[in-house]
Amino acid sequence: MRLALNIEYKGTSYYGWQLQKTHKEKTLQYHVDKAISKVADEKIITVCAGRTDTGVHATGQVVHFDTEKKRLDLNWIRGINSFLPNDIYVNAIYHVDKKFHARYSALSRTYRYIIFNNEYASPILRDYSLHFQEVLDLEKIKKSFLYLKGEHDFTSFQGAGCSSKNPVKEITKINLKKSSKLIYIDITSNSFLYHMVRNIIGTLLDIGIGKYSPSSLKKLIQLKDRKYAGKMVSASGLYLMKVNYPKIHMIDYKTSTFF
Amino acid sequence: MRLALNIEYKGTSYYGWQLQKTHKEKTLQYHVDKAISKVADEKIITVCAGRTDTGVHATGQVVHFDTEKKRLDLNWIRGINSFLPNDIYVNAIYHVDKKFHARYSALSRTYRYIIFNNEYASPILRDYSLHFQEVLDLEKIKKSFLYLKGEHDFTSFQGAGCSSKNPVKEITKINLKKSSKLIYIDITSNSFLYHMVRNIIGTLLDIGIGKYSPSSLKKLIQLKDRKYAGKMVSASGLYLMKVNYPKIHMIDYKTSTFF
Repeated sequence: MRLALNIEYKGTSYYGWQLQKTHKEKTLQYHVDKAISKVADEKIITVCAGRTDTGVHATGQVVHFDTEKKRLDLNWIRGINSFLPNDIYVNAIYHVDKKFHARYSALSRTYRYIIFNNEYASPILRDYSLHFQEVLDLEKIKKSFLYLKGEHDFTSFQGAGCSSKNPVKEITKINLKKSSKLIYIDITSNSFLYHMVRNIIGTLLDIGIGKYSPSSLKKLIQLKDRKYAGKMVSASGLYLMKVNYPKIHMIDYKTSTFF
Repeated sequence: MRLALNIEYKGTSYYGWQLQKTHKEKTLQYHVDKAISKVADEKIITVCAGRTDTGVHATGQVVHFDTEKKRLDLNWIRGINSFLPNDIYVNAIYHVDKKFHARYSALSRTYRYIIFNNEYASPILRDYSLHFQEVLDLEKIKKSFLYLKGEHDFTSFQGAGCSSKNPVKEITKINLKKSSKLIYIDITSNSFLYHMVRNIIGTLLDIGIGKYSPSSLKKLIQLKDRKYAGKMVSASGLYLMKVNYPKIHMIDYKTSTFF
């Protein structure tokens, strides 16, 4: 029997999703696997959809695992949550077939980046956004989306140490909305290179303050060299918001998007 | 010379604003007074507009203090912030005359209460809202505002240990808005009794789930007895949002409302 879970977490206190040999208690996977193992009463190792990095949050992380143990859905969820730290929370469970794979079945992933664009920083938003003081021309940023959309070689936005064999990715959607002093940029792609979202956001901010023109993005992509793009921005503003699967898997959960 | 500051803070880790003899490092005032004293290079004791309780947040706390030390406004702000913990932040400074008093000059205070109305809890919103699962009839809650508005004896919503001599307060404004799964209730009053906002919100939730009718609030106020009103709700959803002063004091700062 294969089960899948939707997990929300605040990533601030963790060294990312992936279990490591050292500091394993500082990884999200360690806590999730341990909590599921307790409820299943056997050793469980999950497979996740997106291995989020140090400090990155998720509202829509998806994992799958196999077990023959029978529990009511509600008891899986309540049980697992009772063993999880306060900053991790399972909010949905799905019975999937053995062909479902949290990572390989995913058609695309949607990441959200939140910018708090205000003269002063906010201690309340500190862990949940990037504070950016300078005035941003949002129309310029939106214009530049034209050059990001579609299939491109994104080497210019690839972080050092990226294990991806293919730097060609397809951004299918990219949107910006503003509400009060918060700017939300949502990017959907079949997959992402290491640090790709944070490197893209850094470049979009450069365009927003007028350092580069929107069309310069075209050239930047063509250069295929990380050193020309903008600075990588903080993990505090980044959220794995949604993993999109073929409808047949019925992973229809809409993330508890409170933004 | 009298100076006033606008302060934003996350109250989760503190036993409220007011300096106490024991656990003084757990009070907000201890950190604010210490940071200002370092910049002023003399002992400073602030007076605040609203002594927020354990776990209560603020986006618009106002304090005043006296000093003859001269610093540029920007250096006061930057200096104080450099000595403050990450969850407390000064975002405005005002030169006020000696007649200004953070507490006694205030015409009214506005508190905001945030409810995350969703089937599942959110670890991301955990410290910043009340999670409430049941379906709420917001129209009923709005109808009940009619009975809260105006001058009333609010004894029915007065927390034990309240030091206020007069339970008669005047609620001048009360509004509700919903955005996605977040419900914001803003209450403005000349002053508040101990736990008054949290006791009112508990009662409004009872009305929202149909336990009481909106008009029952009229009777509840008339009873002048705490034991009939709703349960007190968690401090995690409560924010001191704005302190309103006569225009002459020029405390015109609009809180960095990111909601």
